[in-house]
Amino acid sequence: MERTMETLKELIRAGRGKIPAHKVIKGGQLVNVMSSEVYPADIAIYKDTIVAVGDVEDYIGPETEMIDAKGYYLTPGMIDGHIHSECSKLSITSYAKAVVPRGTTSMISGLDEYIAVSGLEGLREVMDEVKKSPLKVFWGAPYKTPYTIPQSTVSFNFTKEVHAEVQKWPECFGVWETVREFLQEEDEDTLGAIAEAFRNRLPVFGCAPMAVGNDLNGYLCGGVRLDHESYTHEEVVEKMRKGMHMLIRESSVTHFLQENIKAVTEVNPAFARRVSFCTDDVKASDVLEKGHLDNVVRLAIRAGVEPMTAIQMATINSAEAYRIDHLVGSISPGRIADILFVDSMEHFEVKKVMTNGNMVAENHALTYELKAPERSDVLKHTMKCKLTTKEDFEYKVSIANGEADVLAMDVKGPFVRKRRDVVLKVENGIVLPDTEQDVAMVSVLERFGRNGNKSLAFCSGWKLKKGAMASSAAPDDNDLVVMGVSAEDMSVAANYVIEHGGGQVVVADGKILEFLPLPVGGIVSDCEPAEIAKQEQKIDEAVRSLGSDLPDPMMYMFFLPITAIPDYAITDVGPVDYVNLKIFDPILKLTEK
Amino acid sequence: MERTMETLKELIRAGRGKIPAHKVIKGGQLVNVMSSEVYPADIAIYKDTIVAVGDVEDYIGPETEMIDAKGYYLTPGMIDGHIHSECSKLSITSYAKAVVPRGTTSMISGLDEYIAVSGLEGLREVMDEVKKSPLKVFWGAPYKTPYTIPQSTVSFNFTKEVHAEVQKWPECFGVWETVREFLQEEDEDTLGAIAEAFRNRLPVFGCAPMAVGNDLNGYLCGGVRLDHESYTHEEVVEKMRKGMHMLIRESSVTHFLQENIKAVTEVNPAFARRVSFCTDDVKASDVLEKGHLDNVVRLAIRAGVEPMTAIQMATINSAEAYRIDHLVGSISPGRIADILFVDSMEHFEVKKVMTNGNMVAENHALTYELKAPERSDVLKHTMKCKLTTKEDFEYKVSIANGEADVLAMDVKGPFVRKRRDVVLKVENGIVLPDTEQDVAMVSVLERFGRNGNKSLAFCSGWKLKKGAMASSAAPDDNDLVVMGVSAEDMSVAANYVIEHGGGQVVVADGKILEFLPLPVGGIVSDCEPAEIAKQEQKIDEAVRSLGSDLPDPMMYMFFLPITAIPDYAITDVGPVDYVNLKIFDPILKLTEK
Repeated sequence: MERTMETLKELIRAGRGKIPAHKVIKGGQLVNVMSSEVYPADIAIYKDTIVAVGDVEDYIGPETEMIDAKGYYLTPGMIDGHIHSECSKLSITSYAKAVVPRGTTSMISGLDEYIAVSGLEGLREVMDEVKKSPLKVFWGAPYKTPYTIPQSTVSFNFTKEVHAEVQKWPECFGVWETVREFLQEEDEDTLGAIAEAFRNRLPVFGCAPMAVGNDLNGYLCGGVRLDHESYTHEEVVEKMRKGMHMLIRESSVTHFLQENIKAVTEVNPAFARRVSFCTDDVKASDVLEKGHLDNVVRLAIRAGVEPMTAIQMATINSAEAYRIDHLVGSISPGRIADILFVDSMEHFEVKKVMTNGNMVAENHALTYELKAPERSDVLKHTMKCKLTTKEDFEYKVSIANGEADVLAMDVKGPFVRKRRDVVLKVENGIVLPDTEQDVAMVSVLERFGRNGNKSLAFCSGWKLKKGAMASSAAPDDNDLVVMGVSAEDMSVAANYVIEHGGGQVVVADGKILEFLPLPVGGIVSDCEPAEIAKQEQKIDEAVRSLGSDLPDPMMYMFFLPITAIPDYAITDVGPVDYVNLKIFDPILKLTEK
Repeated sequence: MERTMETLKELIRAGRGKIPAHKVIKGGQLVNVMSSEVYPADIAIYKDTIVAVGDVEDYIGPETEMIDAKGYYLTPGMIDGHIHSECSKLSITSYAKAVVPRGTTSMISGLDEYIAVSGLEGLREVMDEVKKSPLKVFWGAPYKTPYTIPQSTVSFNFTKEVHAEVQKWPECFGVWETVREFLQEEDEDTLGAIAEAFRNRLPVFGCAPMAVGNDLNGYLCGGVRLDHESYTHEEVVEKMRKGMHMLIRESSVTHFLQENIKAVTEVNPAFARRVSFCTDDVKASDVLEKGHLDNVVRLAIRAGVEPMTAIQMATINSAEAYRIDHLVGSISPGRIADILFVDSMEHFEVKKVMTNGNMVAENHALTYELKAPERSDVLKHTMKCKLTTKEDFEYKVSIANGEADVLAMDVKGPFVRKRRDVVLKVENGIVLPDTEQDVAMVSVLERFGRNGNKSLAFCSGWKLKKGAMASSAAPDDNDLVVMGVSAEDMSVAANYVIEHGGGQVVVADGKILEFLPLPVGGIVSDCEPAEIAKQEQKIDEAVRSLGSDLPDPMMYMFFLPITAIPDYAITDVGPVDYVNLKIFDPILKLTEK
């Protein structure tokens, strides 16, 4: 993707047909997303770049490789407009194996969870991994880490001073996921990052679920360009009328397309121009079963969007929203050669994939062996907390025996937690979890060796009858989260993850039921996507064997530290009241008996 | 336009309605170019920024100024997508007086002629002037100065090293007017500027008239984003299919709208999305008579474009092409308050204008007194060449008497010059111009005190019967251009301009017939637009009195140094063969008699 004086000279010559193309794609139907037209056109490619489209006879030399596209529609590679690939538990290399064969050739990402666990050093290592993969990442510098109010602990604090440095990097294309509340609270790092972006003429990417009216106006006055999170199509309509680009999110957890797309299909087709797609976080199993952005395009077509329009939403619209349309998003001279061979515009089955000028995938699989790079200690050794004891997970109070009125965080969905008041027994100075009342303990342990923080609180909704579970993958901080109804098992679970360098574990009666290793940063694995899908399935079954009937009990747990989810959360500094953005005391009253 | 942490805080508060708006525009019909909708909406403005659109009751405080918009359509201020305002001979201040009342509130410009005559020092001075004017300039750093091949002389050479510095300036929004031939010739400064822009994620603005096929492909491989110069709508179509943004040029000299717009009205309405307008160079008299971009919008509507689409072309489309849509181009929260009060969408008569949150114009005139700033010596003293003598304009050859076969540059239009072979008399070792055959002398004198270069050649088409004319305003170099059929008068003309600090002059029989002073950089004046229009008219009449019947003989002359115009040009280094991009000898043969 680099353009130096030397590569420019080469490309200009190649573009003029003065040196032959390396590859020519012949006989396909060009899906021209710039002109909304479909017509036969051949494509000449030099190295990683499209150098000519149309009649390319002049570009064919004796060494030019001819690629037959008869019977295929040729579309640009798709762009995921907002994704934390880390949530899939797949390393960049493994994630590319999952999504590139489905036609996702670029993604916009903050790589923010790598940063949370390994700082800029780890980030640079991951950026090098990206360069060796068939997947491109357009990086947005996280507006800050941690994202939490009150501030929790991560391995690296992304501040406005860091922005002053990294926004100069050529890999940086904007400011990532700027959460509304931080503008509203006039957070210094956030405003500093935005002011820096303004100076560098970089777009500010947003995150403003349910922002409407004056709140939305205030947010837009902060200079945010786009958003990827709207709950209703009315919200989409208001945001777009007020000048935002909108990404419709269709993730493994939240399915917004069907509702959001009504802004286009029911309210005003003119909105289509600035609508694009993102998947935010996906599970490997979902990609393997349903596909990735290809599935989103099909869903949009099924919802009544014209195939050309849906394809534009997955390609050029994203590219324009993020101001990367000079590089990707269309099949035009000078753009990177990311090209999909599709069966038909209506069915949109991605048959073959070219990225960076190389044919890399066919029939939903890479056509070559892609190996993960060797990992340095920066990414391998991130579990830096001390081993725990059962006492760490016992909630001690000032009375010996009696009752405690407790505020338990009651999970009502992946992104909603409500207050639930319960009365728990106090025995020997310890407030006990209660399987009958569906109240478990939850703890977050700072794991980067920075301060040894530990928190402990009460939660409800998991219906655990016994045992415990733990995860070092827990966006956005990725501290170690432990939940259970047995302090012993919680300690066993935590220690197992710590000793094994990161992962997810399920424990009962002191025994390991299942372990999913996440050796890279404690958050992702270099396993094949199918292998991770299988391991996730096993973890899920193990938690179910403890009694839980949530759709994804492990995930519901590891999302608990996200303070941007109403009404409650828990980080390493304690349980958080989201509405007031303050640490709260879960003990409401103690009654000695 | 600056966004610091402090201004961001203020704006966010104002956006949330926590501090009252300074102004509220009430009762108008919002022309929402983002959603292609028209509906009633009020607008709250804080300082120079739109903070709320829609129901803005919450934003009204006791001090809020209410502006009645009943009966008006409210559109965003218009953006001229490519303009050398210097060509109007009006300083920024005077130019703003002409175009802002017509609804042009932003322009994309290289300010390249200021740079040619006064370097970065003069540029900074003009940028300061811009900040005090109601007109915004989004500056593109000229890909290089001079633009000529072979290289001529200007006061300041814009090199790739200069780009490395200025592209960091917050005022810089891209690379200005990158001419195709310089990419094709693999010019080091040009490629260096582009590579630098790539690193800085800045768009590269183009200039590629008549580029099609492989030439166009090669150009696009150089990373150019947009173009403002297409002769036919087929050229527009090809460029757009290949991924370019297109600006349709409707200047005082060339009228491309009617032909170019067919790409939208006859070929494919989908092209409209990336079409916008520019005026490139305009005469004061034209703006006063016909208007500016408002006129272009009306022309587009008359050519069959929907009013909403035409307004989008003049506003948001330009903003998106240049990636300044976060600042201007729509009436949305967070954007600069540039708002036009228009009588109707169909007639598109601009009645009132707000820029930067201030009501500045009504009924085609500014509503306040705008004074030009004091000019420093950098801009006032740019005529640094020595006085001339008549010998400077005598073409000397190696024979005493006889005939010379001469290649005269024959003007066939403002942007076409063809070869014309003529036989001229040689007397006393001098080749004589010939009024009977319509052959005059033309000379370009370097005027920045750098090397004292002078060139001399023959031209045809002006039909001068006597006298001479000279101009220190002569894009793009703005060296001193002198034309005449009398060496004495040429010297008088040149010396008058030199002694008066720049301007245009017409001379006959040793006498000054007319003089138009251009004291700022020798290229522009702080006069009122109407005054300049009158002076231009007088200059024109004076040249006509010498015999010329060209549409604008002075302009046809001062365009002669532009080497990007086929087939011939003349700069201070000599007459140039454009096709081979080489200096040529106008003397084809000498015959002694």
